[in-house]
Amino acid sequence: MKLTIERTALLKSLGHVQSVVERRNTIPILSNVRMETGESGFSLNATDMDLEIVETVTATTLAPGATTAPAHTLYDIVRKLPDGSQVELSYDGNDGQLVLKAGRSRFSLSCLPVEDFPALSAGEFSHSFSLPATDLRGLIDRTRFAISTEETRYYLNGIYLHATESAGVPVLRAVATDGHRLARAEIPLPAGAAGMPGVIVPRKTVGELRKLIEETGMDITVGLSEQKIRFDFDETRLTSKLIDGTFPDYERVIPTENDKVLEVDCKLFAQAADRVSAISTEKSRAIKVAVAKGTMTLSASSPDAGSAVEEIEAAYQSTSLEIGFNSRYLLDILGQVEGGSVRLTFADAASPTVIRDVADASAVYVLMPMRV
Amino acid sequence: MKLTIERTALLKSLGHVQSVVERRNTIPILSNVRMETGESGFSLNATDMDLEIVETVTATTLAPGATTAPAHTLYDIVRKLPDGSQVELSYDGNDGQLVLKAGRSRFSLSCLPVEDFPALSAGEFSHSFSLPATDLRGLIDRTRFAISTEETRYYLNGIYLHATESAGVPVLRAVATDGHRLARAEIPLPAGAAGMPGVIVPRKTVGELRKLIEETGMDITVGLSEQKIRFDFDETRLTSKLIDGTFPDYERVIPTENDKVLEVDCKLFAQAADRVSAISTEKSRAIKVAVAKGTMTLSASSPDAGSAVEEIEAAYQSTSLEIGFNSRYLLDILGQVEGGSVRLTFADAASPTVIRDVADASAVYVLMPMRV
Repeated sequence: MKLTIERTALLKSLGHVQSVVERRNTIPILSNVRMETGESGFSLNATDMDLEIVETVTATTLAPGATTAPAHTLYDIVRKLPDGSQVELSYDGNDGQLVLKAGRSRFSLSCLPVEDFPALSAGEFSHSFSLPATDLRGLIDRTRFAISTEETRYYLNGIYLHATESAGVPVLRAVATDGHRLARAEIPLPAGAAGMPGVIVPRKTVGELRKLIEETGMDITVGLSEQKIRFDFDETRLTSKLIDGTFPDYERVIPTENDKVLEVDCKLFAQAADRVSAISTEKSRAIKVAVAKGTMTLSASSPDAGSAVEEIEAAYQSTSLEIGFNSRYLLDILGQVEGGSVRLTFADAASPTVIRDVADASAVYVLMPMRV
Repeated sequence: MKLTIERTALLKSLGHVQSVVERRNTIPILSNVRMETGESGFSLNATDMDLEIVETVTATTLAPGATTAPAHTLYDIVRKLPDGSQVELSYDGNDGQLVLKAGRSRFSLSCLPVEDFPALSAGEFSHSFSLPATDLRGLIDRTRFAISTEETRYYLNGIYLHATESAGVPVLRAVATDGHRLARAEIPLPAGAAGMPGVIVPRKTVGELRKLIEETGMDITVGLSEQKIRFDFDETRLTSKLIDGTFPDYERVIPTENDKVLEVDCKLFAQAADRVSAISTEKSRAIKVAVAKGTMTLSASSPDAGSAVEEIEAAYQSTSLEIGFNSRYLLDILGQVEGGSVRLTFADAASPTVIRDVADASAVYVLMPMRV
């Protein structure tokens, strides 16, 4: 294998693939990136056995071939090369070393046999569809913060993606919950997604995907089966195993009978909640929300620090109510509200509250109360 | 005590004083900031018993008084208040609470008695002098990276500041060393500093001072005795205990007989050393420097990762030499070279190397070699 490639292009792709590689690996080859010359370009490939990324970049192939070398070290070297460098990569197979040359730098990296590099066989995809990158970003951003980190509840460690109907319209819906809060967002169902199985996309895959599509303006092609999901865009292909579990019947958690409706300026609410939470203890983060005709009063107290109280105007006409929330969970939700106003619907102090962006009917958030 | 103050002014000063307050304190009052109204303004004061900061800010006093309240919590609250807020602080002594009001926010913080707040009595200063902030920043920046973090060698845990002569000219000199590298910088001796005792300024004091003088253009007034040092500038007074120990005779460590002289472009050298170190092990960080007529060759190898080699042009006329360095220590020094070229003078592979900024005769660095 021998090729030349621009440092900028190599750095960008290595940045993407090395991110999938775990810092500590019991299986040495999982620390490596697989490289191969091909007709469509030079491909870089990394995996943690659950998630696989393949990127194809433009390079000038001088001799075809393939090998694997330590991903983080290679990335570190390329990152430190001067901007505008031309990089030559070569591997002749005799000494088991990948040689990198750029300017007066010469690096020699220990390789592992390309035959030993695990491939995540994707199998057949039962469904395939495309959606704009902005739609996919929206589904992720409005739900990922609610993904559970409790490993024992592995079926909550991801975003549940499924096709369903919302007011008679077919939608692609994303749901995440950790038992304390739930987030649900949807977009019109893309063509080809009808009848797709409901799948749970793991947190790490969600995180890598979100980073990769940050700047893309293209459509994302999604392929999925009951075991795997694949995202294709730009020069990147991300394939992931799915979480093998049953996502709970989340609809039962979303209250439909909450009748006390409050609307408030989202920014003022978030800023006040953030300030008041300065007093709540590091552990509980509890704040109290008292609503009465025309106002909302946020307060917090802690035996050590003292107390805080802040009042904001709100549109509210029902009976007075006091309810406690974890301020961090509340701020996570308010951070996703892009419109100016947020609508909270309460039942009582012991029941979950529903939060919606007044300007965006496609997302619903549910927040469990805390005793305060 | 009752006063009003602009949020911006309060935030700036609280930011400074809370930085001195340790996150964990066995003595509760050390978590607090002492506040007092006075003729010259509203003063804020924090201490960790070794280091004390006092800041005086403009405020409108409505009733004189003093109290103490949790520094980090107060800072957190003020930070979260809207820009442009007017803050009212009041303490009436009956309920032991500091009340902060701003807009519709009202916070009540538990106070501790102002009489219990420890004062760092400065005693008499035997010497006092002024120096430009840029000079003080220069002394700190060119030496602080070499301060030892080994607590057993407490007398190396700071910068040794003393008056001496350099080529017959009186200078104020700063020295730091951790046994692996030594940094020495000097400025012309300020008037009033002649005969001052040599003092060791603790690392935390150096760090806080450096942050505080980052933006000041004023002269810094320094007062010192054998036990204490004080820095006065802008609205800030920083008083610190000194390290009670004897700084080693550092002059003996600086080689004077090194006769192999090399000059090289500092930026090229630093970038090459940084790249080559990508291969050296995380622990040793060792790189090898081979010098020969006209060139310098940097290399590194590790049993796991592979090897690296890079050649740069250098002005060198002596016999060839191979010497090992810790790349991180080398890069710390090169990071302080502001001129284009750096001069290295070697004796042999087992002896310390002297490094100087060709454009700045006022700083000297000594780097111990490593076996590679």
